[in-house]
Amino acid sequence: METTIAAIGPLDEAAMAAARDLQARLTKPAGSLGTLEELSVRLAGLAGACPPPLPEPAAVAIFAGDHGVHAQGVTPWPQEVTAQMIGNFLAGGAVVNAFARQAGASVTVVDVGVATPLPVSGPPPAADASPGSPAVADVLPGVPATGAGIDAPRLVAAKVRAGTRDLTVTAALTRDEARAAVETGIRVADELIAAGAGILLTGDMGIGNTTPSAALVAAFTGSDPAEVTGRGTGVDDETYQRKVDVVRRALRRHQPEPADPLGVLAAVGGLEHAALTGLILAAAARRTPVLLDGVIAVSAALAAAAFTPHAVGAMIAGHRSAEPGATVALRHLGLDPLVDLGLRLGEGTGALLALPVVTGAARVLHEVATFDAAGVAEK
Amino acid sequence: METTIAAIGPLDEAAMAAARDLQARLTKPAGSLGTLEELSVRLAGLAGACPPPLPEPAAVAIFAGDHGVHAQGVTPWPQEVTAQMIGNFLAGGAVVNAFARQAGASVTVVDVGVATPLPVSGPPPAADASPGSPAVADVLPGVPATGAGIDAPRLVAAKVRAGTRDLTVTAALTRDEARAAVETGIRVADELIAAGAGILLTGDMGIGNTTPSAALVAAFTGSDPAEVTGRGTGVDDETYQRKVDVVRRALRRHQPEPADPLGVLAAVGGLEHAALTGLILAAAARRTPVLLDGVIAVSAALAAAAFTPHAVGAMIAGHRSAEPGATVALRHLGLDPLVDLGLRLGEGTGALLALPVVTGAARVLHEVATFDAAGVAEK
Repeated sequence: METTIAAIGPLDEAAMAAARDLQARLTKPAGSLGTLEELSVRLAGLAGACPPPLPEPAAVAIFAGDHGVHAQGVTPWPQEVTAQMIGNFLAGGAVVNAFARQAGASVTVVDVGVATPLPVSGPPPAADASPGSPAVADVLPGVPATGAGIDAPRLVAAKVRAGTRDLTVTAALTRDEARAAVETGIRVADELIAAGAGILLTGDMGIGNTTPSAALVAAFTGSDPAEVTGRGTGVDDETYQRKVDVVRRALRRHQPEPADPLGVLAAVGGLEHAALTGLILAAAARRTPVLLDGVIAVSAALAAAAFTPHAVGAMIAGHRSAEPGATVALRHLGLDPLVDLGLRLGEGTGALLALPVVTGAARVLHEVATFDAAGVAEK
Repeated sequence: METTIAAIGPLDEAAMAAARDLQARLTKPAGSLGTLEELSVRLAGLAGACPPPLPEPAAVAIFAGDHGVHAQGVTPWPQEVTAQMIGNFLAGGAVVNAFARQAGASVTVVDVGVATPLPVSGPPPAADASPGSPAVADVLPGVPATGAGIDAPRLVAAKVRAGTRDLTVTAALTRDEARAAVETGIRVADELIAAGAGILLTGDMGIGNTTPSAALVAAFTGSDPAEVTGRGTGVDDETYQRKVDVVRRALRRHQPEPADPLGVLAAVGGLEHAALTGLILAAAARRTPVLLDGVIAVSAALAAAAFTPHAVGAMIAGHRSAEPGATVALRHLGLDPLVDLGLRLGEGTGALLALPVVTGAARVLHEVATFDAAGVAEK
């Protein structure tokens, strides 16, 4: 972990200047590509090259974990759903799989802390199951050419412990457990990048994980729990009030110190949060962009930024989650999300919807003609 | 035109109900896909089927025209740039080409009213031209597999007249000219759909065309010119004030009547606006989704909706243009844009960035497993 953090440096100013200069010469009015122009500049700065490499292939890493705080009744979903959804991911039947196939992204599922046994994985029938319709994993209707060559989703068994402890009673994790989860995230990122990934996308699965996310955002930003706690996958007013109260009690009990991000992750985080922190740190160390999904990812991103502010240079905010804590965290990180579609699903779905914008931003620097070259007059 | 308009009907309620029911059974919390859920329902209603077909392949139609109002100094760009950019589109060197290759979309350029001679088309070198680097049209660095099979951009010669007249002096077009441009748009849409297009994307090119766009938005929505006029591709304060004044004078002179959309298009529109209106009407008549780009497209969409409100059922707002008139028009149409990235380039670029969201929304109904099928518990 320390080696990875030490390897994270600032963006390359020369490459950024070259990208700004190139943007000004391309056949379009200056600034007319809005957010994409500055995004292309950041990608150049991260890569240390103009144009930066296209961010492909893309790899989604879904870290899955359970949460002791589930016992406090913060969600109406049974804890078994975490394990069941892993089965769904591996069978290719979840929304993240559909979006990943469309984007040509690989899917890696990492059991970093699931509490219940994983189901035997078997492909469920497709949603539009007509009589005799084949299973999802056999033939996928309408799968585009981009998705045809990618590997099937794979599972990495890296359980640190079977779910966290209840953060209202004790620290969710020991420091050693939190560190082990961070190291797992680093290892997964290193392997994906070594295998050729040009961009990493954060994914997550964990029933109850918007509660520790809210606690992390409150701890790192100093916000009030009521400001950063949301309705997650959909809770009623009574459960929502209970969530806010749980976050408030956890912060009061543990008094997490933002300058000690490992301590914060251990006190009020989750195993998937700690692993995502590691993934982000490793991406930054290897100067590979990491596209953040929703509130679980951005709360982990706060931990990564607390380890070293330079880590923010590798981060791209994929979307604005409907969870209020996500907006607070993004503001703290100084990141603007690329899409804002009211998503609150997680899994990596919001990051996948934003991926074509990132690729497009880089592609402009590779493929668009300059005024001179195209024989187009300037104003 | 009248036959096309008569063929446009309401969305299919039964298919929409089936899509809502299917969304509720898929392995995700209800509503967690935000905007994409209602979008999938609208696609089902338009197709009259659940799941609706995936919106592919995609076809971008770029209608190009010039504007007599250019003489009033509403833009710092020379009029020749319209023709020069057509050369750039055909050579594959514009931003719309880069985004279309990424999305696997075809590009059709329609000269419906360019004022100056089209340049001999030749491929310009790529922007990142290193010594010996091949021309754009020969080898495209990093072109994804999706783009490999699509045809080169093609030009349709369908000039109604060499630019409009100056709308501050006289009507921009005669009714017959406006009708001819609408018919051109209908014909292009019909041909693209007959050739297999599953979704049409609006594109446009025309130096000065944000001025007639503002006039159209003001005419159809009753807004004040100052509220709907923007800085286009980038004008200074003095030019901006001149634009607002030009729009105000045009409206005062012509008193366009929203109930007569052909009359409005003739008085203050452009040839590309009229053609886009035809494209949208034909897409709606053939129950094919049409993804709108920026302010030129949404001002044309107002005309289509004035011909028949059912046309709105086929429209999807791609992005929120930085032009203020676009937001006013979208509100009038009751459409929420899918992405909001500060773009103000036109060409179809904003629609192309939104295309994966539309495809993703439809794909969910095809590929995501139900709770029952995947063995996932519900809350």
